[in-house]
Amino acid sequence: MNEFNRNLINIDDLIKGGEREYIKEYITGLHPADIADIIKTLDEDKKREIFNLLHAEVASRVIVEIDDRSREQILEDINRERLVDIVGVMDSDKAADLIADLPQDNAEKILENLPWKDSAEVQKLLKYSEDTAGGIMHTELLSVREEVLVEDAIIQFMAISEEIGNIHDTFIIDKNRQLVGVMPVRKLLLIKPETPISRVMDRHIISVNVHTDQEEVARVFKKYDLVSLAVVDKEDRLMGRILIDDIVDVLIEEASEDMLHMAGIYQDEKIMDPPLRSVRIRLPWLVINLATAILAASVVGLFQDTLQAMVILAMFMPIVAGMGGNAGTQALAVTVRGIALGELDFGNAKKALLNSTIAGLLNGIATGAIMALVAYYWKGNYMLGIVIGLAMIINLFIANFFGIIIPLVLKWLKIDPAVASSIFLTTLTDCIGFISFLGLATFFIKYLI
Amino acid sequence: MNEFNRNLINIDDLIKGGEREYIKEYITGLHPADIADIIKTLDEDKKREIFNLLHAEVASRVIVEIDDRSREQILEDINRERLVDIVGVMDSDKAADLIADLPQDNAEKILENLPWKDSAEVQKLLKYSEDTAGGIMHTELLSVREEVLVEDAIIQFMAISEEIGNIHDTFIIDKNRQLVGVMPVRKLLLIKPETPISRVMDRHIISVNVHTDQEEVARVFKKYDLVSLAVVDKEDRLMGRILIDDIVDVLIEEASEDMLHMAGIYQDEKIMDPPLRSVRIRLPWLVINLATAILAASVVGLFQDTLQAMVILAMFMPIVAGMGGNAGTQALAVTVRGIALGELDFGNAKKALLNSTIAGLLNGIATGAIMALVAYYWKGNYMLGIVIGLAMIINLFIANFFGIIIPLVLKWLKIDPAVASSIFLTTLTDCIGFISFLGLATFFIKYLI
Repeated sequence: MNEFNRNLINIDDLIKGGEREYIKEYITGLHPADIADIIKTLDEDKKREIFNLLHAEVASRVIVEIDDRSREQILEDINRERLVDIVGVMDSDKAADLIADLPQDNAEKILENLPWKDSAEVQKLLKYSEDTAGGIMHTELLSVREEVLVEDAIIQFMAISEEIGNIHDTFIIDKNRQLVGVMPVRKLLLIKPETPISRVMDRHIISVNVHTDQEEVARVFKKYDLVSLAVVDKEDRLMGRILIDDIVDVLIEEASEDMLHMAGIYQDEKIMDPPLRSVRIRLPWLVINLATAILAASVVGLFQDTLQAMVILAMFMPIVAGMGGNAGTQALAVTVRGIALGELDFGNAKKALLNSTIAGLLNGIATGAIMALVAYYWKGNYMLGIVIGLAMIINLFIANFFGIIIPLVLKWLKIDPAVASSIFLTTLTDCIGFISFLGLATFFIKYLI
Repeated sequence: MNEFNRNLINIDDLIKGGEREYIKEYITGLHPADIADIIKTLDEDKKREIFNLLHAEVASRVIVEIDDRSREQILEDINRERLVDIVGVMDSDKAADLIADLPQDNAEKILENLPWKDSAEVQKLLKYSEDTAGGIMHTELLSVREEVLVEDAIIQFMAISEEIGNIHDTFIIDKNRQLVGVMPVRKLLLIKPETPISRVMDRHIISVNVHTDQEEVARVFKKYDLVSLAVVDKEDRLMGRILIDDIVDVLIEEASEDMLHMAGIYQDEKIMDPPLRSVRIRLPWLVINLATAILAASVVGLFQDTLQAMVILAMFMPIVAGMGGNAGTQALAVTVRGIALGELDFGNAKKALLNSTIAGLLNGIATGAIMALVAYYWKGNYMLGIVIGLAMIINLFIANFFGIIIPLVLKWLKIDPAVASSIFLTTLTDCIGFISFLGLATFFIKYLI
């Protein structure tokens, strides 16, 4: 399907049988992302061996594409001079990220050994918080003064294009380094070289501040369909630029956050986090859930006499509550996503609510009927079947109704619906489940036993 | 923070007080994405009124940026000639999407009234399935034959750049229209105009087939950090191109899919889907859940004598099961995300498992202790406190252990972990919750009552 993937097929054989020089030649012909994919699959020693075959330029691109674990393994045992070479050819943002991950003394040594200019750039970037525009921007860019001609911009572009990749835009600045205009590089081709750039540049500049949160930066990219974006300080001075490929991961991260939130993970917990960090993140939510579970339990307590009279009700009671929770979670997920994508708002909420409750009723009838039959055949008690079937219909109806209402109310209260909805919903479906089932059982108790 | 947003502040006042001509002038100075944002907030009539003030070129960009509901409302009552004008200036992919959403007879009328070439392009695109490369590509691009010189490519670029925006790459084709090379437009600036393009073009082409699934296309974009990508047919003939901003939404959609999957929504259900579609999507999962809930209930059935002897156990039993489910879901969400992001694999699973079970044990001890105290003070039965506390420690430990194991095993079996994990996990935490709590209660029954 694409040239590079086609090449991957025989890599294992190659590594086993091939000679060093041949492997080197083969592998440096691949795209860095594919080299990273290959290295990922190898043993720790082989990872280092293959990585060390790479030219510093290629190695610098492979090391940013590779997974965290492989990166750690490779960097653990790398020669300092080689690392300086690699960092030296990286864009400043990537260099800063890499250095930020190194042990303090190692990082300092690398910074000392870098050319003075690179070192200064990286140290400047290291000052910005990781999740801000400043933390993800790089300082390599094409900028010209507003007094220049188009041909000067072209000359400037030619001068730096060897060293800096992916130059999409020319940023135009005034004598105070304030950003005053922007011009796609390719459009320089369309204009007479002797035209003053200030006459043809676009003055509608979209830019973000160095301290803007990266999620806001991602939204700006998405909203305006950008490929590159200028970053300025509070005096509007040009500080760096961000490219779309740096932002794609932020957008993906943000989209997957809702899942974590709905599951009760409210911070950016990573799978490899140490246990105490996990506890700190997860315990508060568990304690809140415990409180709501105790509330639901106290509802069961109201029906102690009924349970005493017919203890098999205790078997069925979690089924009703649980199925309400399951159905409600489905409705919730669709609703939270609809809100996130802007497909649901207060204007069209009524229709969504109607659809969801009808779906809830139908699903309640279907699963309620199945459960009624199961209960009847299992315990030979047709009234038990009717009671549990009705209770399930009620609970699934309620679950689907509030699966829409709760996130909408939270949104209206300016609370993130993904964060708090599930607590309210499962408390509700537990309580309604117990009340409807045990309540009906209490009402029909003389037909039940 | 950016020029456009700053302008939005007084738009409401403007609409209320301003004159038509002034509003028109003001609004056409904005970015189409901002105009879409403004229109979104207006009443149905006002939406149409403001939209109709826009020049066809701007209108064509606003209509693709706006939310589905506003688009429907605007298109419902639009003049056909105006719609032809708007569609006429759209990129072919956007035009095809818009036409695909129109009622059949209306769509045909629009196609008839479009210039012949546009109409043919759109009809070609309409044949591809919506979620393939063919369905999201557009046919407007810059391509030159391999025999030409760099200056010819520049002339070609100048000729089409008025009409086609965002030309990043020059695609080079042979006499059979097969794609043989690619060259970023900006690099044309760097090369002597009289150079044959075949000598400087990049022959390492990354391309996708027209029938490639859009999610695979998105992965190619992400992996190779692309801004634009060539689409070819099975004979490698150039058919169209896809830009990163068309792909950003696909990437976001894919990331948010895991949340729906974990909640038991396995198809692309939208918040405004009719109830019967929701039932068809949701019911199978509910039925499977019902089966597992019945399984868990039968576990409770094993302890009927214990429950008969001490009916308040029925109150507390859902707490133990539910808290295990909550803790397990947390572990599951972090694990599923870790797998999706490539941070967790079989190589580092042991460490993740150790971390998670330690976290589970600690969270179990914390919430178990709280629950023990609550049960003791509530029912004045210290042994009840010990039994429920121990049961919770066991269940949270197990939940965190299998919250890692289950998705990993599913991944190993090549089943999407997001899809099936939660069923297995909650069945397990229900059963273990009931067994540990009622089992311990049975064992200590003489100290309990």
